[in-house]
Amino acid sequence: MTKKIINSDFRLGILGGGQLGKMMALAAQNWDLKIWILDTSADFPAGGCCDRFEEGSFKDYEAVYQFGKQVDVLTLEIEHVNTEALLQLEKEGTIVHPSPAALQIIQDKGLQKQFYEQHQLPTAPFRLLESKEAILAAIAEGTLTFPFVQKSRTAGYDGKGVAIIRQEADLNKLIAAPSVIEPLVDLEKEIAVQVARNPSGEIQAFPAVEMEFNDEANLVEYLLCPANITKEVAEEAVRIAKSTIAAFDLCGLLSVEFFLKKDGQLLINEVAPRPHNSGHHTIEGNLCSQFQQHLRAVLDWPLGATDITKPSVMVNLLGAPDHTGPAHYAGLKDCLKIPGAHLHLYGKKITKPFRKMGHATVLADTTEAAKERARLIKDQLSIIT
Amino acid sequence: MTKKIINSDFRLGILGGGQLGKMMALAAQNWDLKIWILDTSADFPAGGCCDRFEEGSFKDYEAVYQFGKQVDVLTLEIEHVNTEALLQLEKEGTIVHPSPAALQIIQDKGLQKQFYEQHQLPTAPFRLLESKEAILAAIAEGTLTFPFVQKSRTAGYDGKGVAIIRQEADLNKLIAAPSVIEPLVDLEKEIAVQVARNPSGEIQAFPAVEMEFNDEANLVEYLLCPANITKEVAEEAVRIAKSTIAAFDLCGLLSVEFFLKKDGQLLINEVAPRPHNSGHHTIEGNLCSQFQQHLRAVLDWPLGATDITKPSVMVNLLGAPDHTGPAHYAGLKDCLKIPGAHLHLYGKKITKPFRKMGHATVLADTTEAAKERARLIKDQLSIIT
Repeated sequence: MTKKIINSDFRLGILGGGQLGKMMALAAQNWDLKIWILDTSADFPAGGCCDRFEEGSFKDYEAVYQFGKQVDVLTLEIEHVNTEALLQLEKEGTIVHPSPAALQIIQDKGLQKQFYEQHQLPTAPFRLLESKEAILAAIAEGTLTFPFVQKSRTAGYDGKGVAIIRQEADLNKLIAAPSVIEPLVDLEKEIAVQVARNPSGEIQAFPAVEMEFNDEANLVEYLLCPANITKEVAEEAVRIAKSTIAAFDLCGLLSVEFFLKKDGQLLINEVAPRPHNSGHHTIEGNLCSQFQQHLRAVLDWPLGATDITKPSVMVNLLGAPDHTGPAHYAGLKDCLKIPGAHLHLYGKKITKPFRKMGHATVLADTTEAAKERARLIKDQLSIIT
Repeated sequence: MTKKIINSDFRLGILGGGQLGKMMALAAQNWDLKIWILDTSADFPAGGCCDRFEEGSFKDYEAVYQFGKQVDVLTLEIEHVNTEALLQLEKEGTIVHPSPAALQIIQDKGLQKQFYEQHQLPTAPFRLLESKEAILAAIAEGTLTFPFVQKSRTAGYDGKGVAIIRQEADLNKLIAAPSVIEPLVDLEKEIAVQVARNPSGEIQAFPAVEMEFNDEANLVEYLLCPANITKEVAEEAVRIAKSTIAAFDLCGLLSVEFFLKKDGQLLINEVAPRPHNSGHHTIEGNLCSQFQQHLRAVLDWPLGATDITKPSVMVNLLGAPDHTGPAHYAGLKDCLKIPGAHLHLYGKKITKPFRKMGHATVLADTTEAAKERARLIKDQLSIIT
């Protein structure tokens, strides 16, 4: 008797209906699953590509609990959800990935850092300070010296919640929140590895990708795959990523962001327990996408092969700096002429300065050629009102 | 002043909510468009991935007309729609692609054949006969000899409406309908070319793909890309496909199916004015998919590059011969282990013998390697009740 695995009554629940939820739902559409999404408005990007969109907050205990009771497997596109509800659902037998226990650590960058230390995973040295005043006191005492980086323990997102303090004049940038304080790393570049693990214990990583930042917005601007790093560094990054997901005892996708120091050492910067902006190139550039891999992992299906099909470069499409209002895409047709360019417009109704409105991935025979075309897209497309 | 091209209020209407409508909607989801679909039940494959699903028949004048009045551009996933309503909509200013005039020819295989003859496009010789009786009379008169192929002029779909009459004993297979009668072609293989054209006059073809049939179901079983044919034949197929779409004065995608005779000559078998089963491999195997290309064409956007990213083989996933009822996928996990395999389950609730329930595309370094893995999928996956 062959085993009946899935049928079209199987319900996958996703907390969050932004672009990550949308791309996860699109990946799931290729399998015969019912996709349910919880977020505050069905007008959000995922609203048009799921079987059911429940309006409610994923930060609210009751909303998450009631939603979770109606699905077979529950996952998420954002880590800032109500973990108390997830713990209760888990207790009552709902399958929840990533695990609420790992989420509680990852939600707090202070606990994250302590976790790396405890598990001997490489990360920059740090201290935890409770307030702006405590930081100023530490400087006054001489135990904290310039330059340093302040990261809010819980409020960080898309470059927010991070202050780089190089000198006394920067102190007005200090954030009033419990924080992780780290020295400024002597950085060669930043790379990321997406790694997945399923309940059967399979672990599979994607090849490392290189990140280039828009300094003004403190957001990733380009991703380059494969990363321009040595084979040794690439292998080491994959090894650390695999150890990290195993240490968290987490199922689903984990995006591990690294600092590569000038001396060649890799340090974990931070992780996200879900598909991540630094893995968008995998949709077209790898045999299996990060979204499909996340679904395979949370459903306890075999993980997919992650080989690169062609070199790729992703560029984030950010709202124009001086526009806030209903979004329009100027220059779109010119971008559509670029060979091998895949445009992903998330469908956010309102554009804001530097808001992530979409991304484009360009496949080409070399990353250099792909980068050139990705730059053309960045230059030609304006998301305006 | 930059031109504002699209925004999230732009409505694309699709007649038909089956798997082709679903994959078209999924392609459109990557752009900021609202997708509206008309078909008889929102339980159909496209029901879960569109912004609005209107329940109604695309064969009904009133349903098509009312639906068409609410969208900005109207297209389709199936040619057997109410063309009278489309003609009226076009008259009233709605943009409709493919054009109703071309559709009326393509809907009738008799008119299709006459069209090829009139435009000097290569096709097998034929005659039109009005009934079973007329066929029997022609045989009796000696003007029609065995073997021959009978194709119903209007009822053909997925191998239905075609009878191969090799000898007198096959005459019980004759279809009672106005028909196209063709000699049996001395066939080397069958190939297909997807070609697209936009209102600005751009024409772009995909590289030829080779089709292998399941004789029992008279359905395509495997697609191999690139086709194993000479460069000359491949170029000739693209040339004929481009002439054909230009002759039809049609915008959107046209799938052109060819017979390749043992003597090397190409004959047009038939065409479909929309994405087609013979182009499914393009989703993962080409820089731009047939679905994205169709959308670009009907929206008058620049057409995408069609280069092959990696050799690919597609296999249709058909309902098991002896099962009718709610669908389950036995052996799915084993298939998910196959590197480079992309499974597409359409989400049809009911399986029937040989019903197209999904497809899988395997990317590999050679078509031979991809074929081997595609065969594994065919052998391991059973769609049963």
